Amino acid sequence: MRHFVEELDYLRSRLLEMSGLVEDSVHRSVLSLADKDPQQAQRVLQNEAAINRMEIEIDDLATRLLALQQPMATDLRFITAAIKINNDLERMGDLAVNIVERSLSLIHEPLMKPLIDIPLMAERVQAMIRKSLDAFVKKDADLARTVLVSDDAVDELRDAVYEELVSYMERDPKTVRQAVNLMFVARNLERLADHATNIAEDVLFLVQGVDVRHHAETRE
Amino acid sequence: MRHFVEELDYLRSRLLEMSGLVEDSVHRSVLSLADKDPQQAQRVLQNEAAINRMEIEIDDLATRLLALQQPMATDLRFITAAIKINNDLERMGDLAVNIVERSLSLIHEPLMKPLIDIPLMAERVQAMIRKSLDAFVKKDADLARTVLVSDDAVDELRDAVYEELVSYMERDPKTVRQAVNLMFVARNLERLADHATNIAEDVLFLVQGVDVRHHAETRE
Repeated sequence: MRHFVEELDYLRSRLLEMSGLVEDSVHRSVLSLADKDPQQAQRVLQNEAAINRMEIEIDDLATRLLALQQPMATDLRFITAAIKINNDLERMGDLAVNIVERSLSLIHEPLMKPLIDIPLMAERVQAMIRKSLDAFVKKDADLARTVLVSDDAVDELRDAVYEELVSYMERDPKTVRQAVNLMFVARNLERLADHATNIAEDVLFLVQGVDVRHHAETRE
Repeated sequence: MRHFVEELDYLRSRLLEMSGLVEDSVHRSVLSLADKDPQQAQRVLQNEAAINRMEIEIDDLATRLLALQQPMATDLRFITAAIKINNDLERMGDLAVNIVERSLSLIHEPLMKPLIDIPLMAERVQAMIRKSLDAFVKKDADLARTVLVSDDAVDELRDAVYEELVSYMERDPKTVRQAVNLMFVARNLERLADHATNIAEDVLFLVQGVDVRHHAETRE
């Protein structure tokens, strides 16, 4: 077995690689929708298979490090954070696949309108993923906090998308099926943002030892 | 600190307690919708606060057990499973709150039709939660496997709900807002079932050392 510090570095780099795949999947899932491009959809499915394999590998590595070593408090917190982040990233890969499924079911009909807010949501979500993992690697609490702020912006975009789609459906029943599919795309993007937020919260806990989940810091 | 075996028992009993609250929340969230009862909704919000506190406590306990002891392979697997199950249960509490939010936004209007499939989905989900935690406590792989089967039944119910709601919306634009809310209720129930399935998969890994996530067992 490599030296413990090297193993931790390897764990970190594998998580970064995995998050790169997730980011790529989010980007391509919305491209497959906007450009009606089945090849982009195909790549998201390939990414997911790779992400699933990485999840199992990273879980094994983290568990092995917990078992074979007697990690100090900081390292222990790092490894348990890695286990949680790994879990989040794997589910994010699934969410991108959900978007692709909606996209494929719309591929043979024209969109009721050009997509504006949905690609914007996707851009925000990609930035959140990148920043939350950067914050993890650099142990940067300020960067992690910017992710929490972005989450609110994504929620606002989602509300705007919902309102617009509901009014389409109310005006024209022929749009119902398509609008329902687009709503679920927006919903999946919102959940992707939630997972990036979970990761940022784990980073804050890791760096500061402060539990910001459920606003526990204001509770004392 | 208590003896290690007692600590493990305590961890187990806290997770059972937490899952009892989640089950109760699922039940009440759908009651609040079907009976238009804001008191049931209130109880779900109270449950969520309790579940959030338990999540932090259980996480602390599990991390402490990893840090202070040198658990053997089986115990280590049990503790990492507990960390994941804890995470799932906390998110399940949030999903019940999502249902309650939809329910409260529908509370002042009559439902377009009596609810049938949604309460049925909720019953199935409650049984899945109970069985997955029972399987965890009893290390019962057969019981865990029945949860995976139930997940498919819940997905079928969700498809039936979606189809029915889409046809309502297409026939009568006045039903759109309500139908969208009910779709998201069905979606949240489906996600609750997915989390129960995650737990059952963790149990299978714990008991058999076989990773059934992503059907890894058929991959070798």
